[in-house]
Amino acid sequence: MRAIVTVRFKEGVLDPEAVAIARALKGLGFEEVRAVRREKRLELDLDAAEPDRARERVRAMCEELLANPVIETYTIALENDR
Amino acid sequence: MRAIVTVRFKEGVLDPEAVAIARALKGLGFEEVRAVRREKRLELDLDAAEPDRARERVRAMCEELLANPVIETYTIALENDR
Repeated sequence: MRAIVTVRFKEGVLDPEAVAIARALKGLGFEEVRAVRREKRLELDLDAAEPDRARERVRAMCEELLANPVIETYTIALENDR
Repeated sequence: MRAIVTVRFKEGVLDPEAVAIARALKGLGFEEVRAVRREKRLELDLDAAEPDRARERVRAMCEELLANPVIETYTIALENDR
């Protein structure tokens, strides 16, 4: 089974890297750039058969390692690899 | 207009951060994790009216700043924000 985890900053949290990218693009002459947002996407290959249980486990992975729940939100999507 | 840029490592390129995440998850007891892949997703808000021209400009942004064409590939999707 495969899990897709998407991690992004919560609304209102400043993302300094995104701000730096926007500034760098303008500096390179890409004046049309108004704003940049960034997301992290992780694909996890799992030895798991039961979707509900797999989702619960991936949620625990997010809380413990993959996301910072203070400033980030995450979504989990499951797909079968075959 | 909004552009979604997805940057990932080319097939066969080792992603040390993804390997470290997989190892850390196993260390935390998530033994079912077989492999982890990582992608970077950037949303760009653009002052642009003409899609073909916008796509060409975003491609240039990728080549010059957003991706490392030696080891990474990228895809560009455009969407109107209204």
